Amino acid sequence: MESKPISPSASYSFLLRLSYPNKIGMLANVVRVLSENGADLGAMDIVSVQSGRMIREITVNARSEEHAEQLKEAVSKVPSVTILAASDRVFLLHQGGKILVENKVPLTNRDTLSMAYTPGVARVCEAIAARPDLVYELTIKGRSVAVVSDGSAVLGLGDIGPAAAMPVMEGKAMLFREFGQIHAYPICLAARKVEEIVDTVARIAVGFGGINLEDISAPRCFEIEERLQERLEIPVFHDDQHGTAIVVLAALINSARLLGRELTAQRYVILGAGAAGVAVAKMLLKVGCRSILVCDRGGIVSSGRPDLSPVKQWLAAQTNPDGIRGTVREALKGADVFIGVSSGGRISADDLREMREPRTVFALANPTPEVMPEEAARYAQIVATGRSDYPNQINNVLAFPGVFQGALSVRASRITEGMKLAAAEAIASCIPSSEIAPEYIVPSVFNREVAQCVAEAVAQAAKKDRVVRT
Amino acid sequence: MESKPISPSASYSFLLRLSYPNKIGMLANVVRVLSENGADLGAMDIVSVQSGRMIREITVNARSEEHAEQLKEAVSKVPSVTILAASDRVFLLHQGGKILVENKVPLTNRDTLSMAYTPGVARVCEAIAARPDLVYELTIKGRSVAVVSDGSAVLGLGDIGPAAAMPVMEGKAMLFREFGQIHAYPICLAARKVEEIVDTVARIAVGFGGINLEDISAPRCFEIEERLQERLEIPVFHDDQHGTAIVVLAALINSARLLGRELTAQRYVILGAGAAGVAVAKMLLKVGCRSILVCDRGGIVSSGRPDLSPVKQWLAAQTNPDGIRGTVREALKGADVFIGVSSGGRISADDLREMREPRTVFALANPTPEVMPEEAARYAQIVATGRSDYPNQINNVLAFPGVFQGALSVRASRITEGMKLAAAEAIASCIPSSEIAPEYIVPSVFNREVAQCVAEAVAQAAKKDRVVRT
Repeated sequence: MESKPISPSASYSFLLRLSYPNKIGMLANVVRVLSENGADLGAMDIVSVQSGRMIREITVNARSEEHAEQLKEAVSKVPSVTILAASDRVFLLHQGGKILVENKVPLTNRDTLSMAYTPGVARVCEAIAARPDLVYELTIKGRSVAVVSDGSAVLGLGDIGPAAAMPVMEGKAMLFREFGQIHAYPICLAARKVEEIVDTVARIAVGFGGINLEDISAPRCFEIEERLQERLEIPVFHDDQHGTAIVVLAALINSARLLGRELTAQRYVILGAGAAGVAVAKMLLKVGCRSILVCDRGGIVSSGRPDLSPVKQWLAAQTNPDGIRGTVREALKGADVFIGVSSGGRISADDLREMREPRTVFALANPTPEVMPEEAARYAQIVATGRSDYPNQINNVLAFPGVFQGALSVRASRITEGMKLAAAEAIASCIPSSEIAPEYIVPSVFNREVAQCVAEAVAQAAKKDRVVRT
Repeated sequence: MESKPISPSASYSFLLRLSYPNKIGMLANVVRVLSENGADLGAMDIVSVQSGRMIREITVNARSEEHAEQLKEAVSKVPSVTILAASDRVFLLHQGGKILVENKVPLTNRDTLSMAYTPGVARVCEAIAARPDLVYELTIKGRSVAVVSDGSAVLGLGDIGPAAAMPVMEGKAMLFREFGQIHAYPICLAARKVEEIVDTVARIAVGFGGINLEDISAPRCFEIEERLQERLEIPVFHDDQHGTAIVVLAALINSARLLGRELTAQRYVILGAGAAGVAVAKMLLKVGCRSILVCDRGGIVSSGRPDLSPVKQWLAAQTNPDGIRGTVREALKGADVFIGVSSGGRISADDLREMREPRTVFALANPTPEVMPEEAARYAQIVATGRSDYPNQINNVLAFPGVFQGALSVRASRITEGMKLAAAEAIASCIPSSEIAPEYIVPSVFNREVAQCVAEAVAQAAKKDRVVRT
């Protein structure tokens, strides 16, 4: 069975500026050629009409860069039509960066200048020197997060380095701002050793209310987070681990609810033992799930396997109580839930038949899932992916803006397990029980209530866990 | 002679919310009491009139915190008047910080989200990975500066630490935004060793187009700047040194022009051998001045003095060609120009009589100058200070926004001596020759042409010095 072809999208869109004789039928010719070649068309703005020629700018969505080239080629062959420019919309959006640092008040007169800077600012500095916690109130710290990466495990791209990681970290800062009203700043690190990264982040943390670690490769990410949290009195949160785990748990809560099962009574298989896989396993253990098998490229993680890193040795001891060995297919025998956080096409739909009914399949690898959802749906009652073009998108943006917003609101010193669980439950609760359905187990990323709901739950949990400073 | 009393100012202003019977003469009573007690009054807004009582909010400028308390006390004694609240305007302005990180486009729909973040952002990352210089174009780097401090020498407050330094660094970021259209972010460091600071800043520099070092104590500031510039391919600029030196030189250019003297023919005395003093001396040497005496608390810096730090040993070798020893008063004998970058009240007006006429006196210590300008004016033809309430304010904001704007515009790898000289000349040139006057040797900090003019000159100089990347 063929998987769903990739649809034309804004990710591969361009602005096509055309000039052609201002005659009936010319635009129709262009539109037909583009449509016949598989483009999706957006706005078609008139730029000007001069000397009998029409200048128009058409927004064209393609499927890929190659497809975009084919489309331009096809249009260039339409008689009497000239391409004046073809601008990649994604690159246009990135020109000069995507975020801005703005002033809350303009410094246009002597009075404001003397209050925001010298000499007035001196009194504010003295107040903080005398009462250090005032830094939360009188500076951006209380609403600011550093988005920190070394560029070693960026999206599906891998180790592209800190400079090339900047657009992702800026994008993450935008998500913080848009969904969590948090002022985040991207900090990309030219450092790779655990020691270097820990020292660097610990030294710049003073002015931030929290540290969001991002796209740092395993297993360094575990030690970096742990050591940083030991040194700092602000939350340190590796989103690839905990953000993913929180949203997965939220989706599991609702799928178990839908299927009338107990979370702790189900058998889980996690494929992928990187940052996300380890975090998901830890979270399942935390809520009391016992039957968990984690698989990596070497098969089921089990005690005695000679190739295990320290964190996988820990996993082997905590999961797999029956000491099962074998492949992921063998792991799936009798399992209720499959959670893929690995890479594209790692299992077949046929493998899913090993599972018990009703089957829950989260194939979260991006952009290509472990098994395509159309195929998984032949056997599974509930299917989720990481993609926006299928139902049930497991997207971290449901978690981290609210998690940090809640933590900052109470000046939390760390993100406890209780706060993460509260976040997952809050996300799940954003869908009323009566509305939960096989294709609606997690709320939309554009549901503005989610972050607010998560923030409140996280703040409550922080108080309960006594990690608040307010 | 008494020095000018400190005037009431916005730096010590508060909002007084009062309730009183809505009768004729009540407001007049309050205003009279405040005025008699030395307050300056601003807006007097009516908040509401209810049940015969008027609620009003009055903006009151005081001279000091004590004076503000006296004023509140005086108002509280006015019959029938109740103080509902008295809010410090400087602290109000600082609530929640003074800067914001904002998104250039809202992430309110799937299309924008997919272009600014995954999956669209991946193509931008790949482009930068393939062509590293694109990071200037496609991220905030090309318009961003890190404002870095360890809080060891903040304003006149001294070593108050990194948290208490945050309001100053945020204020600095505001100045960058307001005057240089630069997106600066404050980075306060919990680190003191030169090695630690250099390593930390070098590691976080990837995402910034420049590093502005601020309020780091001497002599560490010299080594930190030098070593960072060696390691980085973006400008590293310690503003307390070079910003000050640039504006001092600009003021000297215009004062020499006004007096019909050659810069290089004058004899200079610099009081203060910290960051600013060393930088001013270096800059004067660079433009060819030879007769320079630098003084510190131990008197004239001269070869053979046993108490000299390495940088002062260097100064002793480069300045003071005749090996003069003695106090600052002795240094002033026959000098044309006095430049104070030390602390309040270090010389007397009488000391200035040792100088040759016409005398130029820059008493830049803040808030109290080395000699009060009213006193200096008895003997000096030209007097400048660092204060905004006297003519000729030597303020770094005339330099750094334009210096970085110019450097960023050509993606400069460093700030050369040529770029600094160009900046000084550009600032000086913002006052037409015909307008230069004893009380007008530097442009106003609110003159918007200055940064633009400095930026253009700095960019030109960077090209000439071949330190540009464009």
